[in-house]
Amino acid sequence: MSKPTLPQGTRDFSAEVVRKRNFILDTIKNVFTLYGFGPLETPAMENLENLMGKYGEEGDKLIFKILNNGLNNPDKADAARKDFELVLQGRNVKGITERALRYDLTIPFARYVAMNAGSLTLPFKRYQAQPVWRADRPQKGRYREFYQCDADIVGSTSLWNEVELIHIYKQAFKNLGITGTDIRINSRKILSALAEACGNKELLVTITVAIDKLDKIGQEKVKEELQSKNLSEEQIQFIEDFLQISGSNAEKLAALKKLLGHLEEGRKGIEEMEFVLNVLQHHSPLPEEDKAITVDLTLARGLNYYTGIIMEVKAPASVKIGSIGGGGRYDDLTGTFGVKGIAGVGISFGIDRIYDVMEELNLFPKNIYSGPQILFFNLGEKECEKSFNLLQQLRFKGISGELYHENAKMDKQFKYAQKKQIPFVAIIGSRELENGVCNVKNLETGHQQEFKMDSLADKLPAFLNQ
Amino acid sequence: MSKPTLPQGTRDFSAEVVRKRNFILDTIKNVFTLYGFGPLETPAMENLENLMGKYGEEGDKLIFKILNNGLNNPDKADAARKDFELVLQGRNVKGITERALRYDLTIPFARYVAMNAGSLTLPFKRYQAQPVWRADRPQKGRYREFYQCDADIVGSTSLWNEVELIHIYKQAFKNLGITGTDIRINSRKILSALAEACGNKELLVTITVAIDKLDKIGQEKVKEELQSKNLSEEQIQFIEDFLQISGSNAEKLAALKKLLGHLEEGRKGIEEMEFVLNVLQHHSPLPEEDKAITVDLTLARGLNYYTGIIMEVKAPASVKIGSIGGGGRYDDLTGTFGVKGIAGVGISFGIDRIYDVMEELNLFPKNIYSGPQILFFNLGEKECEKSFNLLQQLRFKGISGELYHENAKMDKQFKYAQKKQIPFVAIIGSRELENGVCNVKNLETGHQQEFKMDSLADKLPAFLNQ
Repeated sequence: MSKPTLPQGTRDFSAEVVRKRNFILDTIKNVFTLYGFGPLETPAMENLENLMGKYGEEGDKLIFKILNNGLNNPDKADAARKDFELVLQGRNVKGITERALRYDLTIPFARYVAMNAGSLTLPFKRYQAQPVWRADRPQKGRYREFYQCDADIVGSTSLWNEVELIHIYKQAFKNLGITGTDIRINSRKILSALAEACGNKELLVTITVAIDKLDKIGQEKVKEELQSKNLSEEQIQFIEDFLQISGSNAEKLAALKKLLGHLEEGRKGIEEMEFVLNVLQHHSPLPEEDKAITVDLTLARGLNYYTGIIMEVKAPASVKIGSIGGGGRYDDLTGTFGVKGIAGVGISFGIDRIYDVMEELNLFPKNIYSGPQILFFNLGEKECEKSFNLLQQLRFKGISGELYHENAKMDKQFKYAQKKQIPFVAIIGSRELENGVCNVKNLETGHQQEFKMDSLADKLPAFLNQ
Repeated sequence: MSKPTLPQGTRDFSAEVVRKRNFILDTIKNVFTLYGFGPLETPAMENLENLMGKYGEEGDKLIFKILNNGLNNPDKADAARKDFELVLQGRNVKGITERALRYDLTIPFARYVAMNAGSLTLPFKRYQAQPVWRADRPQKGRYREFYQCDADIVGSTSLWNEVELIHIYKQAFKNLGITGTDIRINSRKILSALAEACGNKELLVTITVAIDKLDKIGQEKVKEELQSKNLSEEQIQFIEDFLQISGSNAEKLAALKKLLGHLEEGRKGIEEMEFVLNVLQHHSPLPEEDKAITVDLTLARGLNYYTGIIMEVKAPASVKIGSIGGGGRYDDLTGTFGVKGIAGVGISFGIDRIYDVMEELNLFPKNIYSGPQILFFNLGEKECEKSFNLLQQLRFKGISGELYHENAKMDKQFKYAQKKQIPFVAIIGSRELENGVCNVKNLETGHQQEFKMDSLADKLPAFLNQ
């Protein structure tokens, strides 16, 4: 058999990568915990009907469906053939597929809340960090299996939630050691008012979709897209005026008031952003230099379910990575599952991109390596028995170590320690065995010290930490 | 829409359950780390061809296959119909399904080792704790999605590995607080010698499969099964004599020597077990009462790839749960992926069953709850602004807390704290705001203390930890 391969767009994570990814995930989870969020885990599989229609037409196509088992039941072959004809027409049929892989963490969360609405204490704050799967065309930085890391609060319309989520971003990126991120906010209410000002509230989606592409395709192309959707020159001009609003946050909001302040939604959207900016400026203990966030009227975000403040975190300008997090407020996420009136707001961290940022800026702490601290050499049967005994004593004390698996040349055992980056080796040869001692060598400094076997477990920890 | 449901055999894990499960997983991972194992994560999906044929005929049927996307391409409809006919015959066809969900962690590990054989430092020690999926009929304690937690060493035939794995079991269950487990060992070499002594080495699988059921179906039924496989009365008598060997470990090994010691494999199997028992007895620093393991000649283990010592951990006798871990030595796991000659040995922890044992024996530590420590009441706009500021100062210091999301009656806010088991509340009403103070109340003891706002962040930690 030829060498096996991995499915396209999926990855193995080696020890070093797992440790770095866990550093990111643990750091963020710890911040979620500080803010009162608890963990939730949902299954990788969901009933297909719970996922279909939630991610738009394109999204539906990217859901990985699971083939029903037992299709080879001869009694059901005819029915299966009929069902398969529907599959060939692009339908999803219970006879062929009933389950699918999680596409994001938001819909499973909504499903969970709907299923447990009666017993949850509201507001309910949960975080969730699990893989999701998308049958997207794999390319650099885009995978078919990747982690999402979300925090949401449902059952509250209070703007303090938005304030807290922004502080979570601030604190998490600070704890990760990433400086120079830029948190941008906008409001769907303002975009909605923009559509209304253009004379047609129904245009909200068209306008949002077009603006969302501004970063990628530029203003000219956005204009062309709006023309292709039959917006009038006057409407397009109005949108362009809106997009050209610039200056400080205060200047932008002042200009916004002139443009959209006469509309109820515009007024509310502006007020909500002012509330958040005001708390940050006047009531947050953040150091002055960390208080900044940016009102970005060109921020739109793709998903349709947002209804209030939306936000996005840009990576430090020195790395060309774009957004490393985002979120926003939604009014009725569980409505689709039959439970109405549960509003919420949430944010997401882009773990893979954060990993790339930290790698590029060399931000992973040096002590992230948690491999073994000491290798006991294996220099003969009796020597090895003694080595094992001493090593076990150390392990019981919480010191990680290894016993070289076989009696081999010293050279080979040194090489193993070096390759595995084990900083210390313990040597018990025939002489040491006779004298009841153990030699411990620091491979980096070359410094070597002899310990009595009896007192090794007591005295070694200090030596290792020198 | 009616309330949504979960796919059969899958579960949501709430915050409390996630925390308890993580306590188990983290405890075990920490022990793996102490013994020099590093983490590995593999994708949920594998190429179907890498999984098929690895788990026996029954296993193949229980693999969850993923439906190829893009089946609705009209150009390929005829080919898809043909492929589907093969699916109806129980085949797996690339046109319909190329990928499948991980069924265990061992084959993905073997696939990883085969793919990276050139660059791994041998012996290679990895641990892995990830979910696996099986299309089994769900029942109590059996799920379609469940965690496996494995540690394996490949690239070494040394018996010291077996010794270390047994110590990992000892140390992990001790750290979990589970006492009274029983580690049982046997050897495939001995079972192989038994088959040889019966006059036919090829009987190994038949005998192993039958003995493996002894616990469940009893000796009579095992005898019937062997009869149905056309074993002679003499052969069956010999196997029964073998299974009836009893006494201490030393007595069992002595009886074994008489029965199978004249055969090369028998002799080797006995020697290997003696080595492990001898190290435990004479060279391990474990306290005397923890040194015991049991030679259990009725232990067979289902999987075919084992070739040497096999082991299993029985839950404490007071809980009727059976095995909570198991493993063994294999000679050629990666051979199936074209890389020969990499021997290994591994163990597995049954996370779900360990959870049940700990729940039943009430062993989860009380401090496992890591929810918020303090709730700041929301008693008005100005009061809330101040509360938020103080809470943020605490969070920056690593104290977890919440701000009640809206101005509500005290009663409602107290209830929220109680439901979420938040032990302290901080109260800033108009009086406190005026005087620059904050009242903190311990909800358990009723004890209340007033702090100056300026010094709250400095002085509160001590109060919380009283």
